[in-house]
Amino acid sequence: MPPFQNIAIVGVGLIGGSIGLALRKRGLAAEVIGIGRRQSSLEKALACGAIDRAELDMKQGVASADVVIVASPVASVVDHVCLALASVGSQALVTDVGSTKATICAGIEKQAEQASLQQFVGSHPLAGDHRTGPENARADLLDGKTVVVTPTKNTSSSIAARAETFWESLGARVVQMPPDAHDEALAATSHLPHLVASALVAATPDEWLSLVATGWTDTTRVAAADPELWTQIFSQNQTALLGALDRLVEQIDHLREGISAENWSQIQDALQKAKRTRDTLGN
Amino acid sequence: MPPFQNIAIVGVGLIGGSIGLALRKRGLAAEVIGIGRRQSSLEKALACGAIDRAELDMKQGVASADVVIVASPVASVVDHVCLALASVGSQALVTDVGSTKATICAGIEKQAEQASLQQFVGSHPLAGDHRTGPENARADLLDGKTVVVTPTKNTSSSIAARAETFWESLGARVVQMPPDAHDEALAATSHLPHLVASALVAATPDEWLSLVATGWTDTTRVAAADPELWTQIFSQNQTALLGALDRLVEQIDHLREGISAENWSQIQDALQKAKRTRDTLGN
Repeated sequence: MPPFQNIAIVGVGLIGGSIGLALRKRGLAAEVIGIGRRQSSLEKALACGAIDRAELDMKQGVASADVVIVASPVASVVDHVCLALASVGSQALVTDVGSTKATICAGIEKQAEQASLQQFVGSHPLAGDHRTGPENARADLLDGKTVVVTPTKNTSSSIAARAETFWESLGARVVQMPPDAHDEALAATSHLPHLVASALVAATPDEWLSLVATGWTDTTRVAAADPELWTQIFSQNQTALLGALDRLVEQIDHLREGISAENWSQIQDALQKAKRTRDTLGN
Repeated sequence: MPPFQNIAIVGVGLIGGSIGLALRKRGLAAEVIGIGRRQSSLEKALACGAIDRAELDMKQGVASADVVIVASPVASVVDHVCLALASVGSQALVTDVGSTKATICAGIEKQAEQASLQQFVGSHPLAGDHRTGPENARADLLDGKTVVVTPTKNTSSSIAARAETFWESLGARVVQMPPDAHDEALAATSHLPHLVASALVAATPDEWLSLVATGWTDTTRVAAADPELWTQIFSQNQTALLGALDRLVEQIDHLREGISAENWSQIQDALQKAKRTRDTLGN
């Protein structure tokens, strides 16, 4: 018997679709139900094997689920989680996959029934792609990746443990952190790189774009990500992002001063230090 | 008969080694001679099939060459090119592969015999890797890549044409530009991304490094490049690099203001514009 019975995925895009593919490939659920607003997206998800069944109605879709994964764009997560919490059975786990956690968790605490809050825990799988949609979903997207799970004082410990088991069953390792700490960290490790990649593209005069090579293409790759989605993420993590940006500007100023002053040993030391750190993190 | 007779490569690292491998694989030269200061490096190059013969003595190594490629670190290029120009036959082409061109071309014009200057043209293959050494050389490194060739008023047009033929025979496409224009462009398309990648690494607090994902690893990949080499490049292109940095800081300031002011439509427009540009350049 599979470890989970019915798993409902709300929003079957890249992440939701990849979770569905992995669940089905690993035989972890009796049924994977895809929930979405557009029949066309659900049909794509059915066609690529990410879900067993499609539902347009959230209430109906989550009614029999023992696990609900809300994989909608971050701006819709609070509403979808609250709707799911109002419709699931009292033993079900509800989680999300949003790239921010503090705004989402606070919004859900404010909007959902107090009694249902114990059933929710936020999650953020640190995996993705600048491409979107179920057509880019991959069964191994989470394999070997980290998922941050962010319980609050309202989350029951058995629900947090179940979320951990769920993500581990997909091949991920789980780290638990409070929502605020997650957002501070991700501002530096994810949101800032996205912002800087876009700034680098904008700072490259058009007439020189034919001269870019792998240094530029690597450094700017994430600038191809979905602008609407990333604007939502930035808006939900404004303070931490500005803090991370300040730290970057400080480093840039420092390098700028070194270059202006022709202090090449300072520059080489800075590059050496960054290389040492970067080398510890693989290719 | 191969199109080239003896090709001498001065400095058989990643780029020099890759050129040697490509020449030998494509049967383009009767003999590929590797010239270096350390027997151990030359033996590595021989072992991986990048060269036919090793020479420690530059004069001897280039004497019979019809093409000399100086693939030394940028700080040594001027000396090595001048030494080669003083030792080659009067019909030979001498070129380099340095990442900067204005300082190198000006240094050579100052230091070499005036009569020999017509035999030199600067080159910069826009290909590389943050890994170095002949052990990372690849026969296809230049395949489909761009090589910028930077003739000056001293370069004979037949030598510039021969350089173009040489790079094209390795599968590259050639763009001709004056050395200054090359450096301006490359400051934006290559040198700045390297600088920013290092700054991003330095701006990431150590305790959060375990939470990085592909966004961060892509954006910072080139921070693993050789610090000494890149310090030389920055020092040879100081003015253009500072100009490129100013343009980046302007973009960052603009994004910072938008985020502070919660002007999310401005932010989304900026991300959208960068995405449109980035999308034209492939993955």
